[in-house]
Amino acid sequence: MSQSYSTSRPCRLRDVPGWDLETDVAVVGFGSSGASAAIEAAAAGARVLVFEVASGHGGTSAMAGGDIYLGGGGGTSAQRANGFEDATEDFFRYMMMAGGPDADEERVRIYAEGALAHHEWLKAQGVPYRDTYIPGKPVMPGTGDCLILSGSEYAWPFKEQARPCPRGHLPEAIGETGGFFLVEALAKRAKALGVEAIFDTRAVALVVDDDGAVAGLVVSTLGERDRFVRARGGVVLCAGGFALNEAMLAQYAPVRKRLADDGLSGGYDDGSGIRLGMSVGGTAIHMDELFITLPFYPPESHVKGILINDKGARFINEDAYGGRVAHFITSQIGDRFYLLVDDAIFQRPSEYSKIEIAAVGETWGDVEAELGLTPGSLTTTVAIYNQHAAKGEDPLFHKDAHWLKSLDEPPYAALACHLKEAYYPFFTLGGLRVRPTGEVLTTDGEAIVGLYAAGRTACGLPRWGKGYSSGMSLGDCTFFGRKAGRSASERARQAGA
Amino acid sequence: MSQSYSTSRPCRLRDVPGWDLETDVAVVGFGSSGASAAIEAAAAGARVLVFEVASGHGGTSAMAGGDIYLGGGGGTSAQRANGFEDATEDFFRYMMMAGGPDADEERVRIYAEGALAHHEWLKAQGVPYRDTYIPGKPVMPGTGDCLILSGSEYAWPFKEQARPCPRGHLPEAIGETGGFFLVEALAKRAKALGVEAIFDTRAVALVVDDDGAVAGLVVSTLGERDRFVRARGGVVLCAGGFALNEAMLAQYAPVRKRLADDGLSGGYDDGSGIRLGMSVGGTAIHMDELFITLPFYPPESHVKGILINDKGARFINEDAYGGRVAHFITSQIGDRFYLLVDDAIFQRPSEYSKIEIAAVGETWGDVEAELGLTPGSLTTTVAIYNQHAAKGEDPLFHKDAHWLKSLDEPPYAALACHLKEAYYPFFTLGGLRVRPTGEVLTTDGEAIVGLYAAGRTACGLPRWGKGYSSGMSLGDCTFFGRKAGRSASERARQAGA
Repeated sequence: MSQSYSTSRPCRLRDVPGWDLETDVAVVGFGSSGASAAIEAAAAGARVLVFEVASGHGGTSAMAGGDIYLGGGGGTSAQRANGFEDATEDFFRYMMMAGGPDADEERVRIYAEGALAHHEWLKAQGVPYRDTYIPGKPVMPGTGDCLILSGSEYAWPFKEQARPCPRGHLPEAIGETGGFFLVEALAKRAKALGVEAIFDTRAVALVVDDDGAVAGLVVSTLGERDRFVRARGGVVLCAGGFALNEAMLAQYAPVRKRLADDGLSGGYDDGSGIRLGMSVGGTAIHMDELFITLPFYPPESHVKGILINDKGARFINEDAYGGRVAHFITSQIGDRFYLLVDDAIFQRPSEYSKIEIAAVGETWGDVEAELGLTPGSLTTTVAIYNQHAAKGEDPLFHKDAHWLKSLDEPPYAALACHLKEAYYPFFTLGGLRVRPTGEVLTTDGEAIVGLYAAGRTACGLPRWGKGYSSGMSLGDCTFFGRKAGRSASERARQAGA
Repeated sequence: MSQSYSTSRPCRLRDVPGWDLETDVAVVGFGSSGASAAIEAAAAGARVLVFEVASGHGGTSAMAGGDIYLGGGGGTSAQRANGFEDATEDFFRYMMMAGGPDADEERVRIYAEGALAHHEWLKAQGVPYRDTYIPGKPVMPGTGDCLILSGSEYAWPFKEQARPCPRGHLPEAIGETGGFFLVEALAKRAKALGVEAIFDTRAVALVVDDDGAVAGLVVSTLGERDRFVRARGGVVLCAGGFALNEAMLAQYAPVRKRLADDGLSGGYDDGSGIRLGMSVGGTAIHMDELFITLPFYPPESHVKGILINDKGARFINEDAYGGRVAHFITSQIGDRFYLLVDDAIFQRPSEYSKIEIAAVGETWGDVEAELGLTPGSLTTTVAIYNQHAAKGEDPLFHKDAHWLKSLDEPPYAALACHLKEAYYPFFTLGGLRVRPTGEVLTTDGEAIVGLYAAGRTACGLPRWGKGYSSGMSLGDCTFFGRKAGRSASERARQAGA
């Protein structure tokens, strides 16, 4: 080997020629997680250095809509102002369902009980919010309004176990720039607290002492020699997920190969944060889980359509959150999917969705024939659906009555939502196993001393593609980013005492 | 911490108080992988110690049917004797498909080209084989015959890309004890070569030097103090998968929660081999993938039935290998599944399968009503199937004509294959990322010096539940166990030179 360390091989403390930089807390990544960690650590009196590979703060958070999943405690100001009451237990139960079969109950409980205070904290950092509400199923409305329905709350089976209400909270922003406004406010606040950011600089290895504790890190800036950074309290990895690392996607999340589109990323989700954690014994969990977007709405009227596979069969209630529907799409054996609509609900899909009209007909039999589907397959699916939808029922898939209507107003159309053709970008949900404190754990559940992680470098609230709801990732990033920053600063304080 | 090491925290070389045992190659686990590694290392002149947590050799291999997936080069002796010709390229293409979206081409190529020689090697070690063939779709026939169809070779889509033939090779054995005979022969051979086995002894930690190279391991025997074992050539981890570790299953393979049955294991698949590898920076891949058995055949006549979900819809060609069908079952939104059969193909399912008769009727409408399915759902599915099956076609799912018949001989029955009720045991396919040499790799693809893995501690040929074919795991265990043993003995030889 040309050098004795890498993102997957730590640098030994004894091999550090000398510290170029010394700090209490070193944060890797200046997106919403890193900014939140830095703010909390600095507010607790710690010296904080943030290393960011890009030339400015923002990360992938800055390209998001900025939606944060909040509720409980009777409701946020936006929920209450719009007549929604949200009990903590409903919020908790929904997030447990959304977390899937390995939902992290301790983490969900802490979040459910702390979300209202977190909302106030976000406001106090300067993140602007209105208390307005947009009904329906908007996806990144871009109006500057706050409260939106951003998950499967009103859809089966979620509505049966948790009283639904909208919980997506968008910052006040111009257009779809809420994520930018969110990180902008947090970064400004961090700087005001004395946090120092070092840009254009990549974390290339962790430094471990003889007991396996993380003592600092090695950073690299183009054109300069590697620098060794001592972090007395610890290193907080907030370097995003691995949506851009095709080798990691192939090994951990091969469902990616069913999708043609790129990973949703600010440009640096190369998995290096996860690899750094693994290099010192941290374990990464749920690495196969992706959030996958769905192209067929907006327009929201298309939720009243029915989604079929290439056998002419439905397989999911179409009113579930897009990420959930997309996952059931990738679980089917074929690659071709059609949304069936009638004249009453049809609107031309946006060019962005890459959805084409695959067939049009005056009868559903015409559409079936034009698609080349087996005679009787599509037509029976539509007949059964229409018969019950006319009565406001969907006995097969339990789509909510709000979205049910008999598709009986010709002309009829099939919109092609094919995998590899329509727009299905994604990001990763798997990451380092951490405690709610941010402590990174080994497979045996031991904490690695001096190492913390948050955001998509960790496996947090969102860990199940079929349950992901918009706002869960940024909620997790900011809430548990804060916890990780606090943990590292507390350790620095103890070390200094 | 009460001690400075564990399966997830290595012991530093400097903390070793002295070597209790010294060897060239230390093998952890005495199943088929460990035995194969030990034989090759010993045959190359290395001193070999095998540490086995149980009181005797065997591991999970010993409870398997003993099926080894072999072919190519024109055909094995059993294939040729029964009129099958098997080109290496067909064998290669099938295994690439079976490996799924991240199939390891280098590994598959080496295996495809080496399988005939490996078969001869197995015979030379004393594993007994007849050259007989049992047609049909036997599952553990228990007759002592050799060649069986053990995968999806004749099923869509596999048959379209690789010329099919049977490739499962069972040792000559009494009843379903082929795996026992296989390991028995290999263990005897290892002992004859001077391999020393230390039973009732668990590997509790790896020993690493200051450069991160593995220098040995710490082993624990009940009632004795921990012993420190120097391994000059390296440690070969052959400790099985994690089918019995519920915490690991929850974190890595939560589909397990849809299954009620236990993991298929000889009793020690606790994931400790994988955790040992991860403790020194090894990465584990495809940890979400399971092999899941299917309860609805034998009898093989039931493959002529049609499998529906709780919406009355088919979702897979029923003639695909059981593990593939089971995976598509777990991909459906509901938990209830029915195999529809008519009087001509019905046989009472074995008690073992835990399959109950859910409904019987003189018409398919009666069956649909008795099951409480939405009117028109099941009946349409059967009508479309029958209409085409009568012509030897299955345009929707491409079931091979051999298994197609119109289900039109009353009485009709629906057999309940419900998840959590019928018999769906499983084992794990994910494990340490390794080169074909057995070298364990970090996420960045660097080899960890002195560490090797094989069998289900590694992620090998089988790495995709939808592609698993019986015999792929034991084939991988024995073939690449040998490679790992050879790599470690070669390193010992170089160190000694």
